[in-house]
Amino acid sequence: MSRSDLTQRILAEKIRKGLSWDAIARTLGVSKEWAAAACLGQMALTAAQAHALCGLLNLPREAETLLQIVPYKGSLPTGIPTDPLLYRFYEILSVYGMAIKEIIHEEFGDGIMSAIDFRMRIAREPDPQGDRVKIEMSGKFLPYRVY
Amino acid sequence: MSRSDLTQRILAEKIRKGLSWDAIARTLGVSKEWAAAACLGQMALTAAQAHALCGLLNLPREAETLLQIVPYKGSLPTGIPTDPLLYRFYEILSVYGMAIKEIIHEEFGDGIMSAIDFRMRIAREPDPQGDRVKIEMSGKFLPYRVY
Amino acid sequence: MSRSDLTQRILAEKIRKGLSWDAIARTLGVSKEWAAAACLGQMALTAAQAHALCGLLNLPREAETLLQIVPYKGSLPTGIPTDPLLYRFYEILSVYGMAIKEIIHEEFGDGIMSAIDFRMRIAREPDPQGDRVKIEMSGKFLPYRVY
Amino acid sequence: MSRSDLTQRILAEKIRKGLSWDAIARTLGVSKEWAAAACLGQMALTAAQAHALCGLLNLPREAETLLQIVPYKGSLPTGIPTDPLLYRFYEILSVYGMAIKEIIHEEFGDGIMSAIDFRMRIAREPDPQGDRVKIEMSGKFLPYRVY
Amino acid sequence: MSRSDLTQRILAEKIRKGLSWDAIARTLGVSKEWAAAACLGQMALTAAQAHALCGLLNLPREAETLLQIVPYKGSLPTGIPTDPLLYRFYEILSVYGMAIKEIIHEEFGDGIMSAIDFRMRIAREPDPQGDRVKIEMSGKFLPYRVY
Amino acid sequence: MSRSDLTQRILAEKIRKGLSWDAIARTLGVSKEWAAAACLGQMALTAAQAHALCGLLNLPREAETLLQIVPYKGSLPTGIPTDPLLYRFYEILSVYGMAIKEIIHEEFGDGIMSAIDFRMRIAREPDPQGDRVKIEMSGKFLPYRVY
Amino acid sequence: MSRSDLTQRILAEKIRKGLSWDAIARTLGVSKEWAAAACLGQMALTAAQAHALCGLLNLPREAETLLQIVPYKGSLPTGIPTDPLLYRFYEILSVYGMAIKEIIHEEFGDGIMSAIDFRMRIAREPDPQGDRVKIEMSGKFLPYRVY
Amino acid sequence: MSRSDLTQRILAEKIRKGLSWDAIARTLGVSKEWAAAACLGQMALTAAQAHALCGLLNLPREAETLLQIVPYKGSLPTGIPTDPLLYRFYEILSVYGMAIKEIIHEEFGDGIMSAIDFRMRIAREPDPQGDRVKIEMSGKFLPYRVY
Amino acid sequence: MSRSDLTQRILAEKIRKGLSWDAIARTLGVSKEWAAAACLGQMALTAAQAHALCGLLNLPREAETLLQIVPYKGSLPTGIPTDPLLYRFYEILSVYGMAIKEIIHEEFGDGIMSAIDFRMRIAREPDPQGDRVKIEMSGKFLPYRVY
Amino acid sequence: MSRSDLTQRILAEKIRKGLSWDAIARTLGVSKEWAAAACLGQMALTAAQAHALCGLLNLPREAETLLQIVPYKGSLPTGIPTDPLLYRFYEILSVYGMAIKEIIHEEFGDGIMSAIDFRMRIAREPDPQGDRVKIEMSGKFLPYRVY
Repeated sequence: MSRSDLTQRILAEKIRKGLSWDAIARTLGVSKEWAAAACLGQMALTAAQAHALCGLLNLPREAETLLQIVPYKGSLPTGIPTDPLLYRFYEILSVYGMAIKEIIHEEFGDGIMSAIDFRMRIAREPDPQGDRVKIEMSGKFLPYRVY
Repeated sequence: MSRSDLTQRILAEKIRKGLSWDAIARTLGVSKEWAAAACLGQMALTAAQAHALCGLLNLPREAETLLQIVPYKGSLPTGIPTDPLLYRFYEILSVYGMAIKEIIHEEFGDGIMSAIDFRMRIAREPDPQGDRVKIEMSGKFLPYRVY
Repeated sequence: MSRSDLTQRILAEKIRKGLSWDAIARTLGVSKEWAAAACLGQMALTAAQAHALCGLLNLPREAETLLQIVPYKGSLPTGIPTDPLLYRFYEILSVYGMAIKEIIHEEFGDGIMSAIDFRMRIAREPDPQGDRVKIEMSGKFLPYRVY
Repeated sequence: MSRSDLTQRILAEKIRKGLSWDAIARTLGVSKEWAAAACLGQMALTAAQAHALCGLLNLPREAETLLQIVPYKGSLPTGIPTDPLLYRFYEILSVYGMAIKEIIHEEFGDGIMSAIDFRMRIAREPDPQGDRVKIEMSGKFLPYRVY
Repeated sequence: MSRSDLTQRILAEKIRKGLSWDAIARTLGVSKEWAAAACLGQMALTAAQAHALCGLLNLPREAETLLQIVPYKGSLPTGIPTDPLLYRFYEILSVYGMAIKEIIHEEFGDGIMSAIDFRMRIAREPDPQGDRVKIEMSGKFLPYRVY
Repeated sequence: MSRSDLTQRILAEKIRKGLSWDAIARTLGVSKEWAAAACLGQMALTAAQAHALCGLLNLPREAETLLQIVPYKGSLPTGIPTDPLLYRFYEILSVYGMAIKEIIHEEFGDGIMSAIDFRMRIAREPDPQGDRVKIEMSGKFLPYRVY
Repeated sequence: MSRSDLTQRILAEKIRKGLSWDAIARTLGVSKEWAAAACLGQMALTAAQAHALCGLLNLPREAETLLQIVPYKGSLPTGIPTDPLLYRFYEILSVYGMAIKEIIHEEFGDGIMSAIDFRMRIAREPDPQGDRVKIEMSGKFLPYRVY
Repeated sequence: MSRSDLTQRILAEKIRKGLSWDAIARTLGVSKEWAAAACLGQMALTAAQAHALCGLLNLPREAETLLQIVPYKGSLPTGIPTDPLLYRFYEILSVYGMAIKEIIHEEFGDGIMSAIDFRMRIAREPDPQGDRVKIEMSGKFLPYRVY
Repeated sequence: MSRSDLTQRILAEKIRKGLSWDAIARTLGVSKEWAAAACLGQMALTAAQAHALCGLLNLPREAETLLQIVPYKGSLPTGIPTDPLLYRFYEILSVYGMAIKEIIHEEFGDGIMSAIDFRMRIAREPDPQGDRVKIEMSGKFLPYRVY
Repeated sequence: MSRSDLTQRILAEKIRKGLSWDAIARTLGVSKEWAAAACLGQMALTAAQAHALCGLLNLPREAETLLQIVPYKGSLPTGIPTDPLLYRFYEILSVYGMAIKEIIHEEFGDGIMSAIDFRMRIAREPDPQGDRVKIEMSGKFLPYRVY
C-alpha cells in the first residue's frame, strides 16, 4: 500500500461514513485545515493520532505505520494547477506576488513569512451579495541571518 | 516608455521620496495592497488616480495615459518563483492545495473563490516568540453554473 | 475504481447502448454540453442525477458516489493539446487572444469573462459552401474589485 | 521598426486619438474582431487597408509595407497565458475540451472546426444579474480526407 | 482494452502474419499511408473497414467498436521526438520552416496548407549513389477568411 | 551586425525591390527553396554567391563575410511553432509520424531519411475544388551501420 | 511482453549467467558497443542474431520476433540525464559543443558528422595518475546538399 | 563589453585575419580543441595567454582582463541543441547512453569519466567511401568514494 | 522486482524493525549518509555488504544481486524538488550559487568540487535558540585540464 | 542602472582593484560568503554597508540606494545550472537528496533546515591526494507547526 493508495482509501471511507473534515479534526485534536493536509499525505501523525484515525476510518494495520512517516510533500499533480479552484490561488500569487513582497519587506525588512511555523484558517464569510471564502494565513516572519 | 519601464520609475521615485505604500494608497484612495499591485502594473487606474499618482511621483505626461490602460497581468518573472519570500506562497499552495480544495467544496459545493471579486490585507501580528505576517484573503464564492 | 476508469466505462456504455449526448443530457435535465463535461469528469452531479445516470448506463454502485464528488478538473492530457480538433481552439486563443482582451476591456473595463458563471452551446450551422461548427459562449463579466 | 514596435505604436496612437476598435474596423471595412487581430500583428492588410490605417493613425511610411507582410502569428507571450482574462479561455478549453471534441465528432464525424475559415463576434449581453460577455465562433467543418 | 493496447495487438498480429502495410491497405480500400496511421490510432475506420481489419488480423469483438471511435490524435511520445528517423522531420521543419512559410505566402498569400484535407505518399526513389526516400505531401490551401 | 539583423535586412530589401524568391534563387544558381533557407540564415553561401547576393540587394560589405559563415541552424522561435502555417507541419509529424516510421522501415530496414543529403520542392497544384500546396521531399536513405 | 520488459529480462539473465558484453558481442558477431545498444533496445537484430541471443540467454520465443523489430529509439529517461556518468557526456556537449562545431566546419565545411554511419569504441587507457576512459567516435562527414 | 560580445569580436577578427583554430592554438600553446573552447567563453586563459591572444587579434585592453576570468560555462543556446551538427552528438548520447554506462561500469565499477580531467581530439579520417570525422575523448575514471 | 520496489521494501523493513540509519550503516561498515544513499538506490554495494543488508532486513534472494548493480542515479521525482526540506537546498544553490562559484574560483582557480570523490556528514548542532542542522561537505578540487 | 548592471560593475571594479572577497567582507563587517552573495544581488545592505561598499569600489551615487533594496532573489540563469561547478551541487542534491531527508527526519522529526536562519563557510581542506573544498552549512531546524 503506497501513501497515495492510502489517501484514496481515506477519502473513500470519509465519504462512505459521511464524516466532515471537522469531525476528523476533532478526533485528531487539531484544526480541520491541518487534518485535511495530513490525511492527504502532507503531514505526519503521531502514533496516537494515527491509531485514532485508523479506528475512525477502519483503516488496515499497515496504515497506522504509514501515517507516522514524514511524507514527500507536494500535493499538486502539475507545477501549475489545472483545477480552477486551485489555479485562482496561483493567479493571486501571479497578480499580487510582487505587491506582497514589497509590503512585507517594507514592514519587516529582508526575510520571509515562514511556511513551516504557519497556520491557516478557512471560513465562510456571509455577505448579502453572495457569501465569500475567507482565508487567514499567519506565518512567523524569519529575517535573513547576517553572518 | 513601456509599462515595465514605468514600474521601475515608480519604484525609484518612491524610494527617492521616502514614500510608504500606505502614503501612495491614501493618495489613490485605495488600500496599500491594491495600490502596490496597481503601481507594479497589475491594475488599471482611473484618470483621477493616474493624475494624482503622477503628481505625487513627478511622473512624465505619457505615464498618465499608460496608468489607465488595462495591463497584461502576471508579475512573476518565472512560472514558479525563485524568490524565497514568493516561493513560500507557492509552497503553501503545493502542500495545502488539495486540503483547501476539500474544505471549500465541503462548505460551498462545486465552484471557486473568486480572484477578481477579491480583497487582501497584509498586517504585522505581534507575537512574543517573534512577530508574524498575517494575510487575510476574501473572495466571493462563485458556484459552477448548471445549464 | 478511479474517476478516469469511470469515464472510460461511461464512454464504453454510451457507445454500446448507442446513446447520444443529447439523450444523456435529457436524463440529467441539463444541456448536452454540461452533460458531456460532467460525464468526462469535469462537473459534479447531484444525487438524483448520479442515480439517473447509473440507471441509464448500468454503472456499478460505487459510481453513484463517485459522480457526486467535486473532481480535480482539467481534461487535457498535455498543457498544449496535440489533438488537431482541440489544438484549433488553442490556436484561436493564440492568434486572437490579445484582440479578445482589447475588445472586452474597451467594452467593459478591467475584469474578466467568468469561466464559472458560464454556458456554452455547440451547433451545426448549415452553409452551402460546407456546414460550419457554431459555438456560443456566454460568461458573466466580473469587474476587478477595488478596495 | 519591427512588427511589434509597430503594434505598440498603433496602440499608442489609438489611445491618443481616442479611437475605438469599431472606428478602426470601419476604416478598414472589416469587423472589429478582425481589425484588432490585424493591428496586433496577426493578419496581413491589403495595400488599400494599410494605406487607410496609416492615414488614420499617422503611421510612418515603412509601416505601410510592414502591414502588408504576412506575420509570424501567435500573440501570447507564454504558452499558457498568465493574464487572468486570457487564462479563462484556456481554462474553458481545459475543462470543456474533451466535451467539445465528443459533441463535434458526434455531429460531424472525424475532422475539425477550421481556425482559418473562421469568424468571431464579441458582444455585450445585457442581464439583470450582471451583463455578460457573449462570444460567437463559427468555423467551417473540415472532414479528414481518406485516400 | 485501451486504444493503445489495440495498437500493440495490431502490430503484433501484422508481424505474426507477415502482412505488409500495403496488404492491410488493400483490405481497407485506402492508401498504405492512411492505413498505417489508422491502425496506429490516428484515424477512425468505417464499420465495414473495422470489420474487415478484425477479420484479417483476428482481433477481438470489442476492437471492432474501438476502431470506429474518433481517437485523441497525436502519436509522438514526446513533444520533440527522440527517435532519429522522426527527429529528421522535425529538423527539416526547424531548418526549412521559415523558408516554407515565405514561399507558400509568396505563392498563395496569407493562409495555410491544410493538414486535414491532406494526402501523403512515401516511396523508394532509386539512385545510383544510394536509394532515396521520397515523400509527397499535398494539402489544400486555405486562405484566412476576412470578415 | 548579427546574422539575424542581416536576415531582417535581406527581407526588407527583397520587399523594397519587389524581388521573388525565384529571382534571388536564379542569382545564386540554386533552387528557390535552398535560396530562401540560405537567406533566412540556415545555409552558408560560397564567396561568389555571397558577392552576387550583396550586389542584388545592396547589402553592406560585412554581409559578404557573414553570409559565408556556417550558421547555428534552427529557424523556429519556439520548440513547437505557434504560427498556424508552420504548426500544420508539426501536426502532420504528430499524427503521421509513427506511420512514416513504420512504412520507411518496412521498405528500407533500420535507418533514416537524411535531412542533410536532402532536397525539397514546393509548388502549386491546381485543383477545381481549391488549389493545393504540393511539397516533395527527397532524402537519401542512410542505413544504421553495424560494426 | 514490451520491448522494455525484454530489456530488463536481458539484463537480469546477463547478470545471472555472469556474461560480459564482450561475450554477448561475440555471439552476435558485432562489437560490444553495438551489442549493448541493441540489447538495450536501440538497434534491430537480424533473424540469426536474434536466434543466437535467445539461445544464449534463454529468452522466450516471442523475444526472437521482438528483437528484429526496428525500435523507437532514445534510451534516456529524461531529456537531460540525471545519472552522473551520463550527465558528464551532456556537459562535454554543453562546454565543448560550439568548439566542436567550429572545428568540424573549418575542416569540412557545412555539414554534419553522421550518427547513423557511425561507430564507437570504449576502452581503458592505463595511466600512472589513474586509468582513463577512452572513447573513439567515427562518423562519416555528410555535406549539406545544394540544389 | 560582456563575455559574449567578446566572443563575437574574437570570431569576427579570426575571420577577418583568416586565422585557423590551429594558428590560434599555437599562439596560446594549447590544442586547437581547448583553444576554441576558451575563445568561445568556456575556459579561462592565463595572463600570458590572454596577452598573446589580444595581440594576435587586436582585442581591446579590457578583453585581456575578461579572458582571465573563470566564465559561467555552457555554450548551447537551448537545453537540447537545434543545430543539426550539435544535435547528432545529443542523439548519440540518447541512443548509446545506456550502452556507454553499461560498458564503463563493467570495466571500471561505479564511478564516472571525468569531464574536467579530460581531453579531446577532432581529426579527419580519410575513407574511400567519404571521409569521416574522428573524435577521441579521454577522461580520467573517478570511482565513487565510499566513506 | 525493480530497484524502486526494493527501495520501498527496505524502507518498510527498516521501520518494521525499528532500525536507525546508523545501525544499518554499522552493518555495512560505512557512514550513515552513504548507507542511506545506497539503500535508496544511489550507490552499489559490494557482495559482502549486499549479503549483510539482506540478512539484517530479511530481503529476498534476488535483492542481493540487485544491490550490487550500479544504479541509474537521481533520486528526485521532479527536476526542482517540491518537498520543502529538499527545496531549501535547491534554494540555497539558487541564492548562494554564484557566490559559491566566485569564492571557489578565487581560492582554487578554474575547476570544480568533485561530487564523486566526495563525502558528507549531517549532524545536530545544539543551540539555545533552537538546535540546528549542520551539514559538512568535502569534495576534492579538480582543476580543468589544459592540453 | 538595473541591479544586474550594478553586479557587473561591482565584479569589474573588484577585478580592476585586485580585491579579494575577504577584503570586501571586512569592509562590510560580514563573512566572505554573505558578502559575495550580497554583492551578487542576493542580500540587502544596510545604509552604512552600502556607503562603505560604494567608497571601496567607487560606485556611483544611485548604487548606494540600489544596494539597500531587498532584491528579487535567485542567481541562476537557468532552473538547472549549466555551469559544471554549480551543477555538481545540484547533482549532490539529486543523488543524496532523499538520504538527507531521511537522516534529518530521523534526527529531528517533520520539519526543515532553514535557508534563512542559515550560515555557510567555504574553505580549503589540505589533503596529500589533492586539496579539497570544504563547505559547512548550518541552518536552524524548523519543526512543522501543528495547530
